[in-house]
Amino acid sequence: MNLITAPQLLVNGDRLNQSIARLAQIGSLPNGGVKRIAYSKEDIEARNLVKHWMETAQMQVRIDAAGNIIGKYLGKDPNAPALATGSHIDTVPCGGHYDGAYGVLAGLEAVRVLQENELQLNRSIEVIVFTDEEGSMIGSKAISGRAIEDPNYYRRPDGTDIYTCLSKVGGNWNALKQARRSSREIAAFVELHVEQGPILESMGKQIGVVEGIVGQRRFTITVKGSANHAGTTPMQMRCDALVAAAQVILAVNRLGNTPGQQVATVGKMEVRPNAANVVPGWVEMSLDIRDLSSLHIDSLLEQLEIHLEEIAVATNTQIRLNSCLHNEPALAEPYIQQAIAQSCEALKLSYTHLPSRASHDAQELAQITDMGMIFVPSEQGISHNANEYTTPEQCIQGANVLLQTLIQLDRR
Amino acid sequence: MNLITAPQLLVNGDRLNQSIARLAQIGSLPNGGVKRIAYSKEDIEARNLVKHWMETAQMQVRIDAAGNIIGKYLGKDPNAPALATGSHIDTVPCGGHYDGAYGVLAGLEAVRVLQENELQLNRSIEVIVFTDEEGSMIGSKAISGRAIEDPNYYRRPDGTDIYTCLSKVGGNWNALKQARRSSREIAAFVELHVEQGPILESMGKQIGVVEGIVGQRRFTITVKGSANHAGTTPMQMRCDALVAAAQVILAVNRLGNTPGQQVATVGKMEVRPNAANVVPGWVEMSLDIRDLSSLHIDSLLEQLEIHLEEIAVATNTQIRLNSCLHNEPALAEPYIQQAIAQSCEALKLSYTHLPSRASHDAQELAQITDMGMIFVPSEQGISHNANEYTTPEQCIQGANVLLQTLIQLDRR
Repeated sequence: MNLITAPQLLVNGDRLNQSIARLAQIGSLPNGGVKRIAYSKEDIEARNLVKHWMETAQMQVRIDAAGNIIGKYLGKDPNAPALATGSHIDTVPCGGHYDGAYGVLAGLEAVRVLQENELQLNRSIEVIVFTDEEGSMIGSKAISGRAIEDPNYYRRPDGTDIYTCLSKVGGNWNALKQARRSSREIAAFVELHVEQGPILESMGKQIGVVEGIVGQRRFTITVKGSANHAGTTPMQMRCDALVAAAQVILAVNRLGNTPGQQVATVGKMEVRPNAANVVPGWVEMSLDIRDLSSLHIDSLLEQLEIHLEEIAVATNTQIRLNSCLHNEPALAEPYIQQAIAQSCEALKLSYTHLPSRASHDAQELAQITDMGMIFVPSEQGISHNANEYTTPEQCIQGANVLLQTLIQLDRR
Repeated sequence: MNLITAPQLLVNGDRLNQSIARLAQIGSLPNGGVKRIAYSKEDIEARNLVKHWMETAQMQVRIDAAGNIIGKYLGKDPNAPALATGSHIDTVPCGGHYDGAYGVLAGLEAVRVLQENELQLNRSIEVIVFTDEEGSMIGSKAISGRAIEDPNYYRRPDGTDIYTCLSKVGGNWNALKQARRSSREIAAFVELHVEQGPILESMGKQIGVVEGIVGQRRFTITVKGSANHAGTTPMQMRCDALVAAAQVILAVNRLGNTPGQQVATVGKMEVRPNAANVVPGWVEMSLDIRDLSSLHIDSLLEQLEIHLEEIAVATNTQIRLNSCLHNEPALAEPYIQQAIAQSCEALKLSYTHLPSRASHDAQELAQITDMGMIFVPSEQGISHNANEYTTPEQCIQGANVLLQTLIQLDRR
């Protein structure tokens, strides 16, 4: 069989969707959602099932120090850097069936179809289940070498320490640095994931070719005015922190709506003293701003800072902007985007290029090797919710694009 | 002595300020403030001291069914409707020395100076200590006949019922209707109070001639949008409730700043789900709007409702305005304002006319008789706070204006 002319090599769609349904039984909630918090007994049960499936598909399975499950399907040249795919199987406290699990099981299905057809690529294929994506991302960060050194950082909300957590899933905190990988081992990483947004559905496209994972900066904006009696303080003598904050919210929204693909959000807000009969003296709010271009974010922030100064003067308040999170964008390699697009064309699937505005393990893998991502549509963009939904047909389409992309990358 | 040409009849300033300081010892706090919550043992101790002082000044003292202390200094014509003054001696949990107490003690001082000079006006003078001004205003509302009939309405935050509360201060819930008064008993009521705002100080005026107590309307404004992922939801697909709320805050502020004496405030705000990475789906906020003219408030609200509709359409949200408080303005009688102004001129004190934008017992008395109010400055407008301050000299000036005003009203 000639792989170059083999778009006919397709995944077993029923098996894929059955695997998704089977995994969703572990931690299933009465409302149809899934609760499979990292390191929980449900997470461990799911990990054991995936490990078992990998072994059944003739993969060599190991657990690294970060607890990542790494299943390797050997290539004709087992010493060449591998092609890697994968995602995570932990969930948020009330998650759906697809976020993470779909990418892992589609990677597994790609290997299953190769294995049952007794096919090998030149390069080995690794399917990786990353540890705790929904929390600390310690799995992919250990692989990129960007995990935090202080173990207290990874303490769970319930107080459990990271030593205990990692040993539960077969990892070892003290050996965490051994989990680090490089492009000498992984030639490229491709993650398949549900979009978790409404763009593909609203454009009527079947596949998203991800251009990169946006950079994200988060700030706390503090407005200090003067709390005063809302009856006895004339309008012109007020230093109303909430009036200033309202102007800030609208300035942020205007910047978000300038031409470009950025998003800018004030999502959280606290007002003090927060009483109907008191002019607000203090407001704290969050700013979240994301774009594929770090330079573009810089430029938006420069404009915002000018607006904040103008607002402070006009409202007789003090406004401060404090950074609390700074993630650089992770760009997808053009040749991987091209391989994904060509796979779509071979499979006659419509596609569009788009950024990922949510975080993924792929952003860590981009630190050490060439990265790409494939999106399939999410119904109404709903995510981190029991109602998260991607049709079985869409799941099959994405898995076929993943399989063809791995085949194409192997030919490079 | 001819009272008509007697601006020389002045209060005893030292005695007045000593009485203010003495009363402030009851419930004094380490920070210099005063805690004398209605019906507390401190309130009862203060009530007993004021009653004792009234009796010492030859006043007939009675407690009505609402627990109001009514001290009567008989006039030459004891059957003619009396001139009444007074205020309250209960405080907020951390109040100052002047709010309420000053008006009671200045009324007492006016009687003391008449009594020690063996002077009688034609009409009797009543000095009234109203029950629970800082809470339910049950004292003045019982006098106006506007107390709520349901005893549960008056239950204290600590669970104590109103029967117990009133009996502690010598009142009787079951006889509350007997506390009602009319203009056949009270010809006019004049309340002296600290301004609790910054207007007199900022204008450099010694006395405020109150034009009336503003009407107050309070609303809850609810904005319903759609909560969504702050990363994956493009700007143009959002229904951001906080962006809509910010426009509402600025519309309210613009209305407050149109020509006129109104104030309009958004003081309280709640955002849901209130997370940095979620587009807000729901906001609830308060609206407080006050003016001397009910028609003017109506007109401002009509304009606001048009703005709210425009904002809802522009932001793809639903906005609702629900009334939760509606107090009509209480206007001061022009002849009483004139008597106050003439007293200021006779005493060579500067004055200005201004509205009271805070509530006072006088607004209830305005329901049954002619009402007037006198303000003295509050340093920096600070009120309901340990730092509330009016100088001893200003306290003396206000008390002299009260005494002269009572003398002038007696001549009508």
